[in-house]
Amino acid sequence: MRAVIPYKKENAKSRLSPVLSKEEREEFVELMLRDVVDSLLCAGITNIDILTTSSKGVPEDLEVNLVVTEPGLNVSINEYLRTVDEPTMIIMADLPLVGSSHLKKITSFPEDVVIVPGKGGGTNILFLSQPKEFTVKYHGCSFLSHCDITNDLGKSIRIFDSLLASTDIDEPHDIVELLIYGDGLAKEYVEKRFCTETGEGRVKISASSKLSGFI
Amino acid sequence: MRAVIPYKKENAKSRLSPVLSKEEREEFVELMLRDVVDSLLCAGITNIDILTTSSKGVPEDLEVNLVVTEPGLNVSINEYLRTVDEPTMIIMADLPLVGSSHLKKITSFPEDVVIVPGKGGGTNILFLSQPKEFTVKYHGCSFLSHCDITNDLGKSIRIFDSLLASTDIDEPHDIVELLIYGDGLAKEYVEKRFCTETGEGRVKISASSKLSGFI
Repeated sequence: MRAVIPYKKENAKSRLSPVLSKEEREEFVELMLRDVVDSLLCAGITNIDILTTSSKGVPEDLEVNLVVTEPGLNVSINEYLRTVDEPTMIIMADLPLVGSSHLKKITSFPEDVVIVPGKGGGTNILFLSQPKEFTVKYHGCSFLSHCDITNDLGKSIRIFDSLLASTDIDEPHDIVELLIYGDGLAKEYVEKRFCTETGEGRVKISASSKLSGFI
Repeated sequence: MRAVIPYKKENAKSRLSPVLSKEEREEFVELMLRDVVDSLLCAGITNIDILTTSSKGVPEDLEVNLVVTEPGLNVSINEYLRTVDEPTMIIMADLPLVGSSHLKKITSFPEDVVIVPGKGGGTNILFLSQPKEFTVKYHGCSFLSHCDITNDLGKSIRIFDSLLASTDIDEPHDIVELLIYGDGLAKEYVEKRFCTETGEGRVKISASSKLSGFI
């Protein structure tokens, strides 16, 4: 079994730019990547490939293999999938709330494909028992695309229903969930910068008073 | 075992007003309520109380009991809890993605308190084995408040991790999840009015072309 994490550090997470600078976003994605790698290792998934267009952005101390590709998420993942011969988990790098217990459950299902939706129709994790046959289609409502692709292949599918695994950190309000449920490096990072602000409706983030001059 | 659903129809769901008129929101909350009652009944929870300030807003054909209270969510629920002597589920009316399988799992845990967080720090469901001792505190980051209250009582707690049960329909972007994962009356309602729009980032809703003149 192996896992592959598409990863881009440079100018990452542009939708967080209202609350984090370019440098901060680049630091932050690295910490989220570290949290994801840590959860994979804790779940016993030690064969980890990082799919990236530039090896420069990947921290050298991580116990991972680098696969340098051309740009283009779908093209690069699909090319990668043609090269693997074992059950493979495609897992996004922005999932600091995914724990090893989630990953153990995901890999234990008997279905051919396990999918963890992301907020707003995305796909956070795809676990493929036969990756060679599968073609991914990220962007847009990729959750439904991946369900359709699985059905077209005549494969069985399991949808994994988890708030924590479905929470990709893409927009400022996602940081609220990280502050509430997180426990890794990415949580530590946002905790220094933000606090929760309550009022009417859902909790929001606001700049932590200690750092408010900087963000 | 019983369930209690706080319910307000009049001018409900004001945060959906950018996409639904007052009349539409009132229709919509009634359909969400019907979906929740249906899931409870399918899960074998037949003793259902609707907590409301006015019996006028509750459809007469529902198999529920009406408990008319003064305004104030916390006060009215806490008064209600003093009157019950059996395991009680407090479940919000805006959870059309909660299915009977979720509810069966929630009621099967051995812990004293089961909590289903809502998006952004809320509390969607609280299942209390001994409701008389418990004091709820909705608004703000009620998820953390309810964890603290449980700890202060020396009770055990289970956090139920489910994207579907955690999706309360409060803001326009929540309707995306309902369109993708729903299968009840509320889903039917939004399906007639909205379609999904894909582009960069998460899926959004847009007015369905057939109805775009009306909304």
